[in-house]
Amino acid sequence: MDTIVSHQALRALMERVFAREGFTAEDAGKIADVLMQADLFGIESHGAQRMMYYHRNIAMGSVDVHAKPEILRETPVSALMDAHFAMGQLSGVQAMELAIEKAGRTGVGIVCVRNSSHYGIAGYYPLMAARQGLCAFSMTNTGPIMVPTFGREMMLGTNPLAFCMPADPYPFWFDASTTVVTLGKVEVYAKRGKTMPDGWTIDAQGEITDDAQAMNRSILAGELGGILPLGGAGETHSGHKGYGLAIMVEALTGVLAQGLLSPEMQGAHGDHTCHFFLAFDPALFGDPADIRARMSRYLTMLRESEKMPGARRIYTPGEKAFEAQARRLAQGIPVEENTLRELREIAAELGVEAI
Amino acid sequence: MDTIVSHQALRALMERVFAREGFTAEDAGKIADVLMQADLFGIESHGAQRMMYYHRNIAMGSVDVHAKPEILRETPVSALMDAHFAMGQLSGVQAMELAIEKAGRTGVGIVCVRNSSHYGIAGYYPLMAARQGLCAFSMTNTGPIMVPTFGREMMLGTNPLAFCMPADPYPFWFDASTTVVTLGKVEVYAKRGKTMPDGWTIDAQGEITDDAQAMNRSILAGELGGILPLGGAGETHSGHKGYGLAIMVEALTGVLAQGLLSPEMQGAHGDHTCHFFLAFDPALFGDPADIRARMSRYLTMLRESEKMPGARRIYTPGEKAFEAQARRLAQGIPVEENTLRELREIAAELGVEAI
Repeated sequence: MDTIVSHQALRALMERVFAREGFTAEDAGKIADVLMQADLFGIESHGAQRMMYYHRNIAMGSVDVHAKPEILRETPVSALMDAHFAMGQLSGVQAMELAIEKAGRTGVGIVCVRNSSHYGIAGYYPLMAARQGLCAFSMTNTGPIMVPTFGREMMLGTNPLAFCMPADPYPFWFDASTTVVTLGKVEVYAKRGKTMPDGWTIDAQGEITDDAQAMNRSILAGELGGILPLGGAGETHSGHKGYGLAIMVEALTGVLAQGLLSPEMQGAHGDHTCHFFLAFDPALFGDPADIRARMSRYLTMLRESEKMPGARRIYTPGEKAFEAQARRLAQGIPVEENTLRELREIAAELGVEAI
Repeated sequence: MDTIVSHQALRALMERVFAREGFTAEDAGKIADVLMQADLFGIESHGAQRMMYYHRNIAMGSVDVHAKPEILRETPVSALMDAHFAMGQLSGVQAMELAIEKAGRTGVGIVCVRNSSHYGIAGYYPLMAARQGLCAFSMTNTGPIMVPTFGREMMLGTNPLAFCMPADPYPFWFDASTTVVTLGKVEVYAKRGKTMPDGWTIDAQGEITDDAQAMNRSILAGELGGILPLGGAGETHSGHKGYGLAIMVEALTGVLAQGLLSPEMQGAHGDHTCHFFLAFDPALFGDPADIRARMSRYLTMLRESEKMPGARRIYTPGEKAFEAQARRLAQGIPVEENTLRELREIAAELGVEAI
């Protein structure tokens, strides 16, 4: 059973919690904004549902509420940041703001971050840039969860790649893990006692399995087996492309920032992740209003193209998210029973007002 | 039946042909080098096999052998090029050289190209950058071949994304279309009269089909149906991610360069394509030797990780290509019967020495 909570009430609770955890009011607001964006976009796995995870990381000391991210190297087009184990949302927002500022001056900015932590939805950051008329990428490594093509040991994270570009009525917003599915989906099937579609995961013996509960357990325990790359097992449906994309993300995050690599992290979400942000100004290449109109026109062409029989709509990336946001701003956010219970536990433990 | 031809003989034939087509000796050498790289890497679909396609495009005037690519806009970090319908390999090499030069001065270079043509393997260009110690991307749109998720009209190209980063004993080299397979694979199955694995293509009615001959015909005829995005049909195995990646490539090529979009092009390969090149210096973020060593170490970890039962090896992207290159440089290149016949036809028609 879901409970409908207004976005104002949910955000206020998040801000109270993070303030009591020790963050300044400003920082608590920044973290809450990233989580709220996920809940508004209908990506529940990365919103309020993650509060307990963050709460525990802070309690364990794996996240440092007083960390001051530090710029180790800088040029007019780039920076390397050591986040010193800050909340990923704070290092992420600071790094993307820096990339945006550089793109404003030189046309392009690339910022790499190491020793950060789980930064929420990868797509939050390029959206910051798109609101200022820029195109942008964001990537992160995560704890190990994906097996290589022909492998059965978790050596790569969900390693998402997000890209955003201005368009109307809303930006082109793409945010996808390079696994066939995220751990969140396996967890949902496990909680509901359902079997998964074939082709999502392999077990310790390397066999395709639909047993969500067994896989959820074995992934969290770090055993052999894991989630398959986008494209699935082997090379028949190009699983090697999802695998290659995941290595590319690892190269641009963990390797380039000289931080931990996915297989060096503890746990499926990873603790000390690395991020990559790149923003550039489309005005480098033409009239930004014209480029924006071309992008909007192409997205419209896609949506209006010939549908599969029985398909109601063709979506373009981000459309479902922006429609969910409009609905949820007006009607409130459905919060799942377990999540609501966890939020109340955290509030009680910290002595702040619950919802 | 394949005929083994030495790489020197095959390259010399390509250079003779392109010189007779009207290119300068230097340009003929540049084009041949891109095609030879594909044949050396074992990517036959993009090597000598494509000579007849280029020969026809030149004959039809869709490629202009005398075109002088023009820089329309330029900043220290970027350029927009109008290729004026040059051979894609020439505009591609010129654009990537410019991106490399900018990366040498400022740390990063982005070059967008419009009104180009089929540029061969996307991965050739970032490899140029990696040889100089840089990381680089290359992307291109192509003629329409991919259907959107829930669609059945070809609205996107194979839209490959290539990325390369220095490593030892060879660079990390990733080059993948965002479709589940390329048209080349469908053609191979059609030529051999074999049925395809399920999940590669849908027919005009939107049904999954394994009929390679029918699909090859309908794709070339531009009918409804087409190749599915990486991840397959619908959203169960995340076909929407392959679809989203393909739009991202289209956004960075056709939209940003303000040229033709995939669905505006004639034919499956496309005639007047757009490209995107981005090179940056890893030294922006740390000691490049250290970053290179980290990358090499990670690739080794992947290759040495636990294999699926029965799997002989775990590959990392580019490994098969570099191993094929070593073999083919030493032992010659297997040229398929039809390709050899076509090469001889072209040589006869142009009055140059055949092989």
